[in-house]
Amino acid sequence: MTPRSLINFCRVCGHAVEHRVPDDGDTRVRAVCPACHTVQYVNPLNVVGTIPVWQDQVLLCRRNIEPRMGKWTLPAGFMELDETTAQGAARETDEEAGLQLEMGPLFSIISVPRVGQVHLFYRATMTSPEAHPGPETQEARLFAEAEIPWEELAFHTTRVTLERFFADRQQGRFGIHDFSID
Amino acid sequence: MTPRSLINFCRVCGHAVEHRVPDDGDTRVRAVCPACHTVQYVNPLNVVGTIPVWQDQVLLCRRNIEPRMGKWTLPAGFMELDETTAQGAARETDEEAGLQLEMGPLFSIISVPRVGQVHLFYRATMTSPEAHPGPETQEARLFAEAEIPWEELAFHTTRVTLERFFADRQQGRFGIHDFSID
Ligand SMILES: [Zn+2]
Ligand SMILES: [Zn+2]
Repeated sequence: MTPRSLINFCRVCGHAVEHRVPDDGDTRVRAVCPACHTVQYVNPLNVVGTIPVWQDQVLLCRRNIEPRMGKWTLPAGFMELDETTAQGAARETDEEAGLQLEMGPLFSIISVPRVGQVHLFYRATMTSPEAHPGPETQEARLFAEAEIPWEELAFHTTRVTLERFFADRQQGRFGIHDFSID
Repeated sequence: MTPRSLINFCRVCGHAVEHRVPDDGDTRVRAVCPACHTVQYVNPLNVVGTIPVWQDQVLLCRRNIEPRMGKWTLPAGFMELDETTAQGAARETDEEAGLQLEMGPLFSIISVPRVGQVHLFYRATMTSPEAHPGPETQEARLFAEAEIPWEELAFHTTRVTLERFFADRQQGRFGIHDFSID
């Protein structure tokens, strides 16, 4: 996959860009077009998803795409234009797991500066135990806490979100957790 | 300013792009390069800022740049790569207002799908009433609740964040508010 930061040409006019600090008071090196003066910014991306809950179980998806093909994850993906964070989380859950669910409150918001991402997970209550996984998912399955495949999770943000979810559930009180990981 | 969605040329190889649904299972129209097959995604941006508090007052900045030059705003700006949401909020506050402060918890996270943004504001306690505004700010000033220039605020997200801040303060209990506005 081409890194987002690889910018050789201006998206507007096609001229080769220069990598320098723009003249507008900016302090960072950007891809600047010497022909049409467009500055091509690269900013963090939001990944939005859910913790789908059925009774005492949580639903995880086994990934059918790289990276981490075959590993388990909470349903999540990149937030798109024209949607809210919660709408994006519901859309990604539908695409990857095909669930009937009622969206709940925000649960975790995790900055991952190493990869330029922010991951946001919402609690969601499944209104049926059935899943209809999409093409990006090999399998969707419900897990009790003791069954979670901790060694087979795809992403660190899934792990820390599940850890905090079960800790909060044990305490009988769910918070909103804002933190960062390396 | 050039809209982010205006993509005519491939950033990697400079070839003219096609606007179509990629062949990888995607469902949205993207700018796709027919030469090197790079897909140029456009996703929402995070705007991160603070509610700087000194005793019973809140600090606002009068903007020295467009849009909304001369209007008042909470210090905030676009999140950058290599930082967390909280680090970005502290950086923007430093750049725009030049404050000494202790960062507090996340307060509001507001999706604004109309403009493809998510705004996140952190509470922050000023450890000195002094401000040293940067070039993007005409003036930084402390306001008691009764003095807030509600009709002269630059952005709707500043307004709703301040409204919820003062409502929570009156109740003696600050929440984390996740919602969306048009
Ligand atoms: Zn150009
Ligand atoms: Zn190309």
